Amino acid sequence: MIDVEHVDEIALGAAVLGTGGGGDPHIGSLIAKRLIAREGAVRMIGIEQLTADDFVLPIGGIGAPSVDVERIMAESEFELAISALERAVGRKATALMPIEVGGGNSMVPLAAAAVTGLPLIDADAMGRAFPEAQMVTFHLAGYGPGATVLVDHHGNEIVSRPVSGEWSERLARVVTVELGGSATMIDYAYDGEVVKECAIPGTLTLARRIGQILRGSLDGVRLRDDEKIGALSRELGAVQLFSGKVADLQREFSGGFTRGRALLSGVAEDRGSEFQLDFQNEMLLARRDGELAAVTPDLIAVLDLATGQPITTESLRYGARVAVIAMPCHEKWRTQIGLETAGPQHFGYDVDWVPVEQLAAARAEQEKAQ
Amino acid sequence: MIDVEHVDEIALGAAVLGTGGGGDPHIGSLIAKRLIAREGAVRMIGIEQLTADDFVLPIGGIGAPSVDVERIMAESEFELAISALERAVGRKATALMPIEVGGGNSMVPLAAAAVTGLPLIDADAMGRAFPEAQMVTFHLAGYGPGATVLVDHHGNEIVSRPVSGEWSERLARVVTVELGGSATMIDYAYDGEVVKECAIPGTLTLARRIGQILRGSLDGVRLRDDEKIGALSRELGAVQLFSGKVADLQREFSGGFTRGRALLSGVAEDRGSEFQLDFQNEMLLARRDGELAAVTPDLIAVLDLATGQPITTESLRYGARVAVIAMPCHEKWRTQIGLETAGPQHFGYDVDWVPVEQLAAARAEQEKAQ
Repeated sequence: MIDVEHVDEIALGAAVLGTGGGGDPHIGSLIAKRLIAREGAVRMIGIEQLTADDFVLPIGGIGAPSVDVERIMAESEFELAISALERAVGRKATALMPIEVGGGNSMVPLAAAAVTGLPLIDADAMGRAFPEAQMVTFHLAGYGPGATVLVDHHGNEIVSRPVSGEWSERLARVVTVELGGSATMIDYAYDGEVVKECAIPGTLTLARRIGQILRGSLDGVRLRDDEKIGALSRELGAVQLFSGKVADLQREFSGGFTRGRALLSGVAEDRGSEFQLDFQNEMLLARRDGELAAVTPDLIAVLDLATGQPITTESLRYGARVAVIAMPCHEKWRTQIGLETAGPQHFGYDVDWVPVEQLAAARAEQEKAQ
Repeated sequence: MIDVEHVDEIALGAAVLGTGGGGDPHIGSLIAKRLIAREGAVRMIGIEQLTADDFVLPIGGIGAPSVDVERIMAESEFELAISALERAVGRKATALMPIEVGGGNSMVPLAAAAVTGLPLIDADAMGRAFPEAQMVTFHLAGYGPGATVLVDHHGNEIVSRPVSGEWSERLARVVTVELGGSATMIDYAYDGEVVKECAIPGTLTLARRIGQILRGSLDGVRLRDDEKIGALSRELGAVQLFSGKVADLQREFSGGFTRGRALLSGVAEDRGSEFQLDFQNEMLLARRDGELAAVTPDLIAVLDLATGQPITTESLRYGARVAVIAMPCHEKWRTQIGLETAGPQHFGYDVDWVPVEQLAAARAEQEKAQ
């Protein structure tokens, strides 16, 4: 069960897994808590319990995190989206699921589950956040988007059947921009067997555990603020890439995305080094003194250096002191189709993907040699 | 019945009623003739025969006329669009109808009727061509777009339920641009009673009669080329506004529209005068020596001066010798809501609508006084 007191933990963990994107879950968490307090706890089920009789709707918001998340958390929008999908395919939903565990999209299905009484699957289709609709494990396994619903706060309802994941993304993006920059979306609605095959299991539970650590509790032991980043990195198998101060920040909103670049100048043991972060909604590429440090689909998270709290690409500020950590993505992304779909070249970076743990090992070797 | 030999007449008349827009019906007419030859004549029925048991689908192409009309005349697209609409509303179509009689959109429903065997209603929802989806008589009568279908030649299918005609236009436009600039569209699907209330009757028959005149036959009497424009103007109650040569032409394709302006310098009795035509897919505004001569929603048609053949905004050429005629729009457009929807101010022209016959009368007075 997910009750009111678990929401903040999940939101915090989702912000880390969101790698700066997926929207700040804070406002979403307030809405989810209000709805759970009113409607009762949400039942969470593991994918191993799913059968072919289940029909699972991945539900989330689409649009740049810049746009107010309150717009996509209207109760009426959840119900409109779910009923539009059910009407389009002639089948009743038995469960909801996050399309991405990262960022605000962890909160949308939680709130929708509270409102509808449907259970929520402890899984998602990214294991992180990604900016495009086809960047989901269903797509990697060869499943198309199927009937795809977009609704907005005006009550506009768009049900498409795109011929591919790429077409789904193109259509959803232009429609969302026209709807004002954000919408509620359901896509890749499949029966329980397909979800079992495709989804990344346990990611809501993982988000909650991350949140517990960042709130200062590891298996019942209290953590000081300055212990959190270390504890989190050990828990996630993450590499601590850099500690620095934001020295330069370019950020723009275009084509439905927040795009930009941040330059960090090193502090403490990283003094004298520079670090560059490139983002498109999510943090996608990290370079240390011009050398690759981590790159999508591996996860790059930016945390407040003092408190360990995650910082989104939207809330990153000039002068902020941050720690950058990176961790391996799910193995489904480390395949040819995974890298074609969400690797650096897809985002226009002329870089080959190298596993973050391999980059870290090479750097450790280098440092030892010096 | 509409048989192969009637298609060219309707296409020609539709090009006149299209006032330069709605796409050149020529390629559409070739496809319609091929399909009618293969499938048999299309049954045409008047709106007076419709009942509440009928369910009428207005079908047409959306997009700039610049984009090849062949793309929106694929048989598979008609069938996909119709079945998507039927699935969305759970009701079988009993008839098709042109959404606009003007231009290539007279040919799309004809071809679709041939393929599906459905009858075609002798009516449309504009009585001309207009560039935006909400510029239909259903909208004027307070009816929303309802379930709205867009399909493309890839097989992408988008069914929206926009909350208003304006939202329908906005969503359809961005989706169409993303689909490559053209798509097949069904909107304002209503039962026979609503169509009876809203549609402009007899417009396919009118188009055919215009076509007969321009092909040189008026009630069985042969017409010479130089008699056609006069005969047509009498038949339509149209005003002959100007004869001139295209002296300047600006035309661009942006946001899914063909926009531009043509300047004519007068020939024959109009020598010494200048004429300006503003268009956005359709001819919308005509000025003679800076004075208003005709303006949307009244119809402005450009014809070849020698042969009377209609010329689209796409095929207008520098140096062409043309006649401009204008005729009153249907009275449904001459209402407050009609003028708000498709009057000059909607298109960004800082001009008040004046009935074309009133402008013509004032000019005749003026000339008499000189």
